[in-house]
Amino acid sequence: MNRLEQQINFIMEVDKIKKITRQTYLSDGSRPENDAEHSFHLAMMCFLLKEYANEEIDVLHTMEMVLIHDVIEIDAGDTYAYDSLGNQSKREREVKAAERIFNLLPEDQASYVRALWDEFEEGATPEARFANALDKIQPLLLNDASGGDTWKSHGINISQILKRNERTPKGSEALWEYCKPILEQNIEKGNISKN
Amino acid sequence: MNRLEQQINFIMEVDKIKKITRQTYLSDGSRPENDAEHSFHLAMMCFLLKEYANEEIDVLHTMEMVLIHDVIEIDAGDTYAYDSLGNQSKREREVKAAERIFNLLPEDQASYVRALWDEFEEGATPEARFANALDKIQPLLLNDASGGDTWKSHGINISQILKRNERTPKGSEALWEYCKPILEQNIEKGNISKN
Repeated sequence: MNRLEQQINFIMEVDKIKKITRQTYLSDGSRPENDAEHSFHLAMMCFLLKEYANEEIDVLHTMEMVLIHDVIEIDAGDTYAYDSLGNQSKREREVKAAERIFNLLPEDQASYVRALWDEFEEGATPEARFANALDKIQPLLLNDASGGDTWKSHGINISQILKRNERTPKGSEALWEYCKPILEQNIEKGNISKN
Repeated sequence: MNRLEQQINFIMEVDKIKKITRQTYLSDGSRPENDAEHSFHLAMMCFLLKEYANEEIDVLHTMEMVLIHDVIEIDAGDTYAYDSLGNQSKREREVKAAERIFNLLPEDQASYVRALWDEFEEGATPEARFANALDKIQPLLLNDASGGDTWKSHGINISQILKRNERTPKGSEALWEYCKPILEQNIEKGNISKN
């Protein structure tokens, strides 16, 4: 198989993330969103909200990272953020998926994309910290827009959300500050439990 | 409304393109894809296939263009490529949509995003030519992968496809060469009509 055929194979494989359903609903509450839509939304946010990154970021690099970050879910599935059992086996499932899927690409791109995913997972660069902040904030905005039912139906409490967002202000203080009153309002409405 | 509120408003408005359905089916033929998924796929292609652009391109700029290019369909809807009546009123509907939607953003970003969309529509830069090539090739690959039914059910003939792809080789000769045998095979299978 030549280089372009390998690349197209990967691109057609990636089509499958349009069928990986998340727990988050679209803003109108009509249906859950999928990983392709989520990644599209993060790329758009990356481009339009870059000024709120705590540190200067390479925007293209961050966009590549958000585009690639959920591709492993084609094999590993979407593990709900607050599913503690699922999260125990998550890492192993995802590494196996990364090995299969990224290696559809020519060697140089396979390594590049794997490094992007590792960078996202490790969260140790300004780009990864900002990408992670967007990845946490996007579902929060959608949950709020769709009426808070996702939090409510899963019985989520504020300490779970704060724990999950521990690293969010490290990517963007400004965006995290924007989210705080949204969380407060959803506690008041009874969508997010206080304890 | 402050700057960040305007930006978040736009980002939540953009959520609606997840509900704009296209004529193209996912590669497994299970359902039509939507504009967010399509734009996600183009951004991924932009990143992984940039080496096939005829001319050197600014990759970030091209990615921004593909992310934004269908946002106007929130108001204007998706006009099927081979719907000649729909295409007569398309431009007017889309300009009106651009004016409403892009102006949700702060002025500097509204102008920037409008310029990106105009650039895509005019197709006069290397970035716009490559973005256009991807925009044409992605549905072609999906139509082929899903068995060619989209072409067949609309009674599409090869001259319509060639006419629609007139500008595709101007963005990428290499990708267009890759597509030619795919079209041939679909003529042979009777999915694309010869005349």
